[in-house]
Amino acid sequence: PPRPLHSAGIIGAPFSKGQVKGGVESGPDHIRAAGLVERLLQQGCAVKDYGNLVFEHVSVDEPVGRLKSVRAVGSANQKLSVAMQKVKESGHTAVMLGGDHSLAIGSVHGHAAALGHLSVVWVDAHADINTPLTSYTGNIHGQPLSYLLRELQSKIPVLPNFSWMKPCLSAGDLVYIGLRDVDPAEHYILKMLGVKMFPMSKVDQLGVAKVMEETCDHLSARGKKPIHLSFDIDAIDPSITPATGTPVTGGLTYREGLCITEHLSQTGLLSAVDLVEVNPLRGQTQNDIHSTVSTAVDLLLACFGRQREGNHLQDYSLPEP
Amino acid sequence: PPRPLHSAGIIGAPFSKGQVKGGVESGPDHIRAAGLVERLLQQGCAVKDYGNLVFEHVSVDEPVGRLKSVRAVGSANQKLSVAMQKVKESGHTAVMLGGDHSLAIGSVHGHAAALGHLSVVWVDAHADINTPLTSYTGNIHGQPLSYLLRELQSKIPVLPNFSWMKPCLSAGDLVYIGLRDVDPAEHYILKMLGVKMFPMSKVDQLGVAKVMEETCDHLSARGKKPIHLSFDIDAIDPSITPATGTPVTGGLTYREGLCITEHLSQTGLLSAVDLVEVNPLRGQTQNDIHSTVSTAVDLLLACFGRQREGNHLQDYSLPEP
Amino acid sequence: PPRPLHSAGIIGAPFSKGQVKGGVESGPDHIRAAGLVERLLQQGCAVKDYGNLVFEHVSVDEPVGRLKSVRAVGSANQKLSVAMQKVKESGHTAVMLGGDHSLAIGSVHGHAAALGHLSVVWVDAHADINTPLTSYTGNIHGQPLSYLLRELQSKIPVLPNFSWMKPCLSAGDLVYIGLRDVDPAEHYILKMLGVKMFPMSKVDQLGVAKVMEETCDHLSARGKKPIHLSFDIDAIDPSITPATGTPVTGGLTYREGLCITEHLSQTGLLSAVDLVEVNPLRGQTQNDIHSTVSTAVDLLLACFGRQREGNHLQDYSLPEP
Ligand SMILES: [Mn+2]
Ligand SMILES: [Mn+2]
Ligand SMILES: [Mn+2]
Ligand SMILES: [Mn+2]
Ligand SMILES: [Mn+2]
Ligand SMILES: [Mn+2]
Repeated sequence: PPRPLHSAGIIGAPFSKGQVKGGVESGPDHIRAAGLVERLLQQGCAVKDYGNLVFEHVSVDEPVGRLKSVRAVGSANQKLSVAMQKVKESGHTAVMLGGDHSLAIGSVHGHAAALGHLSVVWVDAHADINTPLTSYTGNIHGQPLSYLLRELQSKIPVLPNFSWMKPCLSAGDLVYIGLRDVDPAEHYILKMLGVKMFPMSKVDQLGVAKVMEETCDHLSARGKKPIHLSFDIDAIDPSITPATGTPVTGGLTYREGLCITEHLSQTGLLSAVDLVEVNPLRGQTQNDIHSTVSTAVDLLLACFGRQREGNHLQDYSLPEP
Repeated sequence: PPRPLHSAGIIGAPFSKGQVKGGVESGPDHIRAAGLVERLLQQGCAVKDYGNLVFEHVSVDEPVGRLKSVRAVGSANQKLSVAMQKVKESGHTAVMLGGDHSLAIGSVHGHAAALGHLSVVWVDAHADINTPLTSYTGNIHGQPLSYLLRELQSKIPVLPNFSWMKPCLSAGDLVYIGLRDVDPAEHYILKMLGVKMFPMSKVDQLGVAKVMEETCDHLSARGKKPIHLSFDIDAIDPSITPATGTPVTGGLTYREGLCITEHLSQTGLLSAVDLVEVNPLRGQTQNDIHSTVSTAVDLLLACFGRQREGNHLQDYSLPEP
Repeated sequence: PPRPLHSAGIIGAPFSKGQVKGGVESGPDHIRAAGLVERLLQQGCAVKDYGNLVFEHVSVDEPVGRLKSVRAVGSANQKLSVAMQKVKESGHTAVMLGGDHSLAIGSVHGHAAALGHLSVVWVDAHADINTPLTSYTGNIHGQPLSYLLRELQSKIPVLPNFSWMKPCLSAGDLVYIGLRDVDPAEHYILKMLGVKMFPMSKVDQLGVAKVMEETCDHLSARGKKPIHLSFDIDAIDPSITPATGTPVTGGLTYREGLCITEHLSQTGLLSAVDLVEVNPLRGQTQNDIHSTVSTAVDLLLACFGRQREGNHLQDYSLPEP
């Protein structure tokens, strides 16, 4: 049999303390139950499932200013960073199943610890770049990029259980797709740092195919680096993926989601994927949950080479009567 | 504090006799209850709410030919025209909350009475350009443009309670977006007058960004004039805005609606907005009503500068630890 | 009165044995009950309804390898081919209302028997080009193109009740639109034969207007021939047309469906249309069925000249007061 073109190393991260809505910790199990591993194998992808991380309970975790659950988030991400580094050192394309988006801190950090400089494509309704001092809500899932970006280091206070990490991403290596709910402070930061972004208004103007072309041009102009895709399911329109904590109308279509993931897969540079914020408890109906979870699965299959036009193995031969 | 960039003068027009379905008269109150004023203020827009117009009851209003409620429509629009003129003379960007689309007669007329020559962008599933003699239904909400256009003056009979108005719009200053249910007589008129139009087939062909570019090119080629946006909520697809009297499948997406309003806002020429045909009684469920009304609000917020990429004040400064 | 520009000859084909789900045989009656004939007449199209074909029961129809109901499918398509040839020889644009997509065998065959070389535009989520030897399911509705294509003749075994037909289509005269669920064997065949195709990924990349332009360029580069449109309703997204046997997410929008049919109508070459796989029993609600059937009707109306921008007769004259 031919050697598989793709190899997925899957980490489940059942963690929800980057925000306050219960349920998102069951994302990994729901995504697996929808057949992720079986379908990856079916399409000829090698798979190693590392199972779910077990996060230790942090018994005392008082707010730090407005910041909630800082110690739990710090500790969980430290564990995730170590796991991610190991998956990357084993040569797989990493898949981190969240859990909430605060987990991108550990995921990107561990990826960078293994491979050095990265490109990050952040697909999200939200910019997730509040600093601990600008956040209205104190939920760290709205802040991971402020911790990760070198340019924002001076804006971040010292936080308990975060001494293990240093910023490891440059603003020029980050591209956003899907933004439509951005706080004033976040907008200020994005403009100040000149971050490349394709909010929904730009997606509407250019079309998603051109967005992907410009995304890859922007990233590769600074040298081809491994790509970390951090996909918040709330980037997709809530009519398709309602089972998530902070839905925002006017999102990406299912088809646009596939365009993004098919395109990144075809670069050959996709090195890690976060799939976060699937929250089965936020669905109103079984159909809401099914639609959200199966969209997540379809996005991941496309990351590993599935094409809508079809696929066939190189050595296929057609039977004759 | 910095001077607000935008100032909205809101007129409620709870009028429904341009058609026969009850409920559309409660549009203004539903749109306000969804937080229009508060959200405009939040985004830094000055707001003066002029409240709802009170339309006198017309006790005897026999049909004129097939035309229904001619006297009531004439009298209500006279009152609206006066109110509109006053709002414009006070320097606000006017917002007329309908009510049915027959109200555009008074709204455009009052706007032109204050400022002279206008450009009109008519966003609608319907052309609303039947004359009293071509209308099948006799509902005046399907006819306002035939009363407003100078080129059609000879086709309009003398009507009771309409002596206060004269046509004030030229066909070359009108652009349609979103048409998909056009009567043969209307199509004949549009072709005869050479009205610029982007029916859904053209939106599909060009994409909405190009449509807006061509719309603004067309209008400004005749000299930059204040823009009157007359937005019939039925332009948006009924899957998003079902609570309206004459829904037609195949409409604009929520995102396309925002593209139109964001683009017009950015011209700096937007001078008045009608938001009409929100009919809460036509929703099947609370969700239908909510989705329709909140889409109306989002369209209006975009008219007053809200951008999906985010906004921040010029003097914003980022807090440091 | 002016001579009608269009003339439709309608054949109902209440046949479902190309697959295993009951209900698709009632497609023709549901589409007629939704007013197809009346609405075609209203828009100035001449109509001759040939009624429903009556297919004889095949009492013994054992599987041939994995192939199910081979004799019934062969016999039904022979009857349909004869009927189709007659409709075309009478000069109508043929409309074949299915029934399942195995009926395209007889429909295309009869069309070619009357007119010779054809162009075929196949709008479908599926490629329907499995051979009897590659099909997993044995359902012939997934195979019609392998029977019809000259290039695949050597791959097709001799089958009972198929001796009446010979392949009549060249791979270069076939264009696909809407593919998103293609088997490996099918993908191999499409690449081997170099069939022009616009899977959903290409539709996303180019936009449907450009797809139609390239479709017609490709077809007419080989000489303008009559166009046979074979439209599987499952090409449209299941959120719009759920009442079908094998729905696949990520399909064409209603508007894209109309773009395809409006464009083909405007070529002046559209000579026959199959509208297949409407299965009322697969809808969960009355609304599912209504939405599916009325979309089918709207697609057919566009095939016969209905435009979203409106239509009017050449001799229209505007009434004056
Ligand atoms: Mn996020
Ligand atoms: Mn988000
Ligand atoms: Mn209207
Ligand atoms: Mn309308
Ligand atoms: Mn199909
Ligand atoms: Mn088919």
